[in-house]
Amino acid sequence: MNTPLLGLDWGSTRLRAYRFDRDGRVAETRALPWGSRQLPDGGFAEAFARAVDGWPQAPVLACGMVGSRGGWREAPYLDTPCPLDRLAGALTPVDAPGGRRLHVVPGLRDPAGPDVMRGEETQVAGVIARSIAGDGEARLLLPGTHSKWVRVREGAVVGFHTAMTGELFAVLRAHSILGAGLPEGPGDADAFARGVAAACESGAAGGLSRLFSARALMLEGTLPPGSVADFLSGLLIGDELRMALAADWVAPGVPVKVIGEDALCARYLQAAAAFGLAVSAAAGPATAHGLWQVASAAGLLDGDSRP
Amino acid sequence: MNTPLLGLDWGSTRLRAYRFDRDGRVAETRALPWGSRQLPDGGFAEAFARAVDGWPQAPVLACGMVGSRGGWREAPYLDTPCPLDRLAGALTPVDAPGGRRLHVVPGLRDPAGPDVMRGEETQVAGVIARSIAGDGEARLLLPGTHSKWVRVREGAVVGFHTAMTGELFAVLRAHSILGAGLPEGPGDADAFARGVAAACESGAAGGLSRLFSARALMLEGTLPPGSVADFLSGLLIGDELRMALAADWVAPGVPVKVIGEDALCARYLQAAAAFGLAVSAAAGPATAHGLWQVASAAGLLDGDSRP
Repeated sequence: MNTPLLGLDWGSTRLRAYRFDRDGRVAETRALPWGSRQLPDGGFAEAFARAVDGWPQAPVLACGMVGSRGGWREAPYLDTPCPLDRLAGALTPVDAPGGRRLHVVPGLRDPAGPDVMRGEETQVAGVIARSIAGDGEARLLLPGTHSKWVRVREGAVVGFHTAMTGELFAVLRAHSILGAGLPEGPGDADAFARGVAAACESGAAGGLSRLFSARALMLEGTLPPGSVADFLSGLLIGDELRMALAADWVAPGVPVKVIGEDALCARYLQAAAAFGLAVSAAAGPATAHGLWQVASAAGLLDGDSRP
Repeated sequence: MNTPLLGLDWGSTRLRAYRFDRDGRVAETRALPWGSRQLPDGGFAEAFARAVDGWPQAPVLACGMVGSRGGWREAPYLDTPCPLDRLAGALTPVDAPGGRRLHVVPGLRDPAGPDVMRGEETQVAGVIARSIAGDGEARLLLPGTHSKWVRVREGAVVGFHTAMTGELFAVLRAHSILGAGLPEGPGDADAFARGVAAACESGAAGGLSRLFSARALMLEGTLPPGSVADFLSGLLIGDELRMALAADWVAPGVPVKVIGEDALCARYLQAAAAFGLAVSAAAGPATAHGLWQVASAAGLLDGDSRP
């Protein structure tokens, strides 16, 4: 069979669909605007049908907010510590349009926070399979709307923590006095660096203690209105790194692998240098690879097509 | 003259108008919904006319965002350290409808932050005049959308810092996954206390490192949806207190006087106890008293009517 698997990375604001070839490579990708919080008429079923339209019959594996409460079907969390190969045994099936069967990957819950993730567990599975020895220990950072700091040991997620940096940035940019009504700038790397430096200088108090300086600097003319967003980005990412160090999510000198969108990872790499954190970027589309790994372990693939 | 002064406390989202009697007491108060960012047709002039409609001819003194850039007339900031009696010498006049004259109190700027305030300088003047000896040192906290932590010495504002706690709470409540779409609760003092406790337990990392736990606790059913806002309030106010201690805006054991709306002050008093801060509430409407003080020092009052 040339298409042993279809995969869905289905978050709250977007949907990505993957058609895999028999070697586990992504043969085709579709990006659709229908996250679990913004669906077309017809809801999840309609979005699903459009996402896989015309693709061969094959098992479909999905991860992300599609499995949340308020998603298509709730896929209960697995508690940490959680060996990643346990994901494959805990899929939630959903009857989908076109006679297709959808399987939803569970999210993870860290009882210590408490904290939760959905979708990132599949990214972690993809990264671990590709680049971390089975018995190794790793610290992963998945920056984004809800950044995840993940501890992995011997193929298990030992624990994790969320920093809401991306969402904080978005709501401050769109709705607060710091961002609302300001012009879109062309991108100002210097303003970003100034934000990181302000977070550094703030020491134990943290970047939020300097938040209002974004407005004061703009009023006095030393921060252009179009650059406030970049300053804010640097300040908030810097504060996330400070928190991560202060809360022992990571320690100075312990290498952290960053997984995510290139431009965002670049910001974290730049800020990490200012905080003395040893950070490197993990290559490649981790989610697609993770979906393949979980499907394989779950026996969803035809025998012949397993890599 | 029975009405020696009219006063306006004119912020970004609301306008309060005061008619003073000859002893400097507030004889009448009007609350209007026209802040500098939400004006009626006719703009500042129309809002002004309605605020003082039917009141006797008298000098009008205003403080707050009405004097900001984008306000009615920009009243330039005075830099700290700034003796409070300098405010009276730096009023910005505006010709107003009905042949009236409006005078706008300048805001303050702390070059060290940089940081800025508008309106709070008048509150501070009111509190200082009423309850702090001229040569005393005081720490003041004015909680709100943009909380101000103010150091006063010998009748001068030595410096200050802003924490954007109120605005952070509002944007997270209205627009983030933590608050958007959740029901309004009846008020949950226990959830507030849990938020404060979470901020305390987070230690040096700070309350923001526990922000996402508000969602995780709700998902697992131990925090009712209608109580998330109170938990969030406790977490953010707790984190403001942590920041204030870490940044030396105040020190343990140094008494802090809190000035503001009763229910909000009560929240800060409760949270302060958990952080070992010695906090007490200042009584009375500080802004009206401050307007009277500044008007008096500026010679706006008729000689006979000065208290």
